Amino acid sequence: MPRAWSLKARPQGMPKHTDFAIVESASQPLGDGEVRIANSWLSVDPYMRGRMNDVKSYVPPFALGEAMQGGAVGEVVESNVPDMPVGTKVLHMLGWRDEAVLPAAQVQKLPDLGADDQAFLGQLGMPGMTAYFGLLEVAGAKAGDTVFVSAAAGAVGSTVVQIAKAKGMTVIGSAGGAEKCDWVKSLGADAVVDYKAGSAAKGLMAAAPNGIDVYFDNVGGEHLDAALLAANMHARFAICGMIDIYNDGQAQELRYLAKVIGARLRIQGFIVSDFMDRAAEFYADMGKMMAAGQLQRQETVHEGLDAMPDAFMGLFTGGNTGKMLVKV
Amino acid sequence: MPRAWSLKARPQGMPKHTDFAIVESASQPLGDGEVRIANSWLSVDPYMRGRMNDVKSYVPPFALGEAMQGGAVGEVVESNVPDMPVGTKVLHMLGWRDEAVLPAAQVQKLPDLGADDQAFLGQLGMPGMTAYFGLLEVAGAKAGDTVFVSAAAGAVGSTVVQIAKAKGMTVIGSAGGAEKCDWVKSLGADAVVDYKAGSAAKGLMAAAPNGIDVYFDNVGGEHLDAALLAANMHARFAICGMIDIYNDGQAQELRYLAKVIGARLRIQGFIVSDFMDRAAEFYADMGKMMAAGQLQRQETVHEGLDAMPDAFMGLFTGGNTGKMLVKV
Repeated sequence: MPRAWSLKARPQGMPKHTDFAIVESASQPLGDGEVRIANSWLSVDPYMRGRMNDVKSYVPPFALGEAMQGGAVGEVVESNVPDMPVGTKVLHMLGWRDEAVLPAAQVQKLPDLGADDQAFLGQLGMPGMTAYFGLLEVAGAKAGDTVFVSAAAGAVGSTVVQIAKAKGMTVIGSAGGAEKCDWVKSLGADAVVDYKAGSAAKGLMAAAPNGIDVYFDNVGGEHLDAALLAANMHARFAICGMIDIYNDGQAQELRYLAKVIGARLRIQGFIVSDFMDRAAEFYADMGKMMAAGQLQRQETVHEGLDAMPDAFMGLFTGGNTGKMLVKV
Repeated sequence: MPRAWSLKARPQGMPKHTDFAIVESASQPLGDGEVRIANSWLSVDPYMRGRMNDVKSYVPPFALGEAMQGGAVGEVVESNVPDMPVGTKVLHMLGWRDEAVLPAAQVQKLPDLGADDQAFLGQLGMPGMTAYFGLLEVAGAKAGDTVFVSAAAGAVGSTVVQIAKAKGMTVIGSAGGAEKCDWVKSLGADAVVDYKAGSAAKGLMAAAPNGIDVYFDNVGGEHLDAALLAANMHARFAICGMIDIYNDGQAQELRYLAKVIGARLRIQGFIVSDFMDRAAEFYADMGKMMAAGQLQRQETVHEGLDAMPDAFMGLFTGGNTGKMLVKV
């Protein structure tokens, strides 16, 4: 029988195993215009933490006891849609489960970019689009800018580093620990701040003696404060995530916020879904960078559906380098 | 002999009388292209607090022992410049003193708008331009928007309220105490939050049940957090000042900062001097609003040069309704 992860209890603070439960249900018959997909790769992403709270947000909360959702890649195993026959490799949002049944209109064929299937959950998927449009559109980063990106060893951050380098920017990434920092450096970052080895502010001031023009924020908190301190006149901050506070809900202390005024900073929040209608542009440009050898990927893979909660919780404890995935 | 206020010591926290001292100096002879001005009105403004610290900022720090500077209105009493004869009413930046000698190129004749001289230090001067361009350009506020402005009984805030009403917006102002709130209401504000009567967040949520589209920030801190909480999708924040932290230098605690992401907020800092080349546009539009009876002013006036420190310190203790001025 198909199995799916559900939320058993709403996490208080950091999620734990007992917040999750597997539900089994009889295989669903296929309706008109629907396809059945055997999922092969499942995505876990920090934004999912928000959906576990019962509060109004930009995505509705997960319902207790019902199958959760998220990015997934799989293969069509039964189809009522001529255009999407059995064997088609597809991307869709009914993850956290081994089998998905849904209308073909909500399913996307994997673009033909010569990349591994699971890349469409990471660098060539939602995290990659987040990096691409956040950096180039929201922050308006351009050649010559000095860019600081936090969580630079993550799925989004590592892609920001590489797009920025491909576009002629100077890049400083932050990551936790020597191993991740080495990897970020290997991606082309001009400097790396190991936030576990000292304060983010001190690290950034040393790495960026001439200041930063752009900050791509994945974490909030101390990193955001460090970026405020280091910001040059008219710097632009693209606020993508604040993983530091997803679980604790604490107030953020910002010592350097008044810098916004004198330096005329622009702080702009965004959600990748605002750019979904520009996916073709994204694939075209990323395809070029891939062909030019400018994009590397790394994945942290957990094996089997049962490992989903471990993979998800690992996002908040620095458990991944590159994209965190579950292979079903 | 001409007298001027100087900084005797750099204030630690809230400024006090012993931080200031009057210096007397022999009357300065007039050089080529210079004018001598008898100041009649002197301005005190919150931004001056920043110049009292010995730190790099958007304006250089005041030097200890030297005459301080600031907005002033006066009359030319001696002139080496045919175009600016004795008797000309002028605006310039050598305030904090009774007599100023400076090149005519750094002096502006008062525009002919039929307003009191001292209005050019307030609603028709730097504070007014701050309100005008901050609201309309930086925040991009337009008819139909709901605007929240903090320190709404101050020189900048009270002008924001009136421009917003003249342009067809809904306006909520915050001020401290019933008297100031009544005045803000009399300016046309649709609702007023008395932050001394309860938390800014609770007051704003009650006053703006449908949220806010624009926040004009003069104070930072709790007001900024309240605005984050109440912000609608794609709301724009113009960050003009953070008077709450000018003196204490403490970190700001923001509980609702993550709202920036889901609501796609834009937070933009600015300095009025960036808009100085658009003064003609400002005077023209303000002149129209004045003629239409849409602009009221109130002033809190201290008498005599000796009162400058009192006037200045009063800015941080809610001592003014409308523009704080010293009449020499």
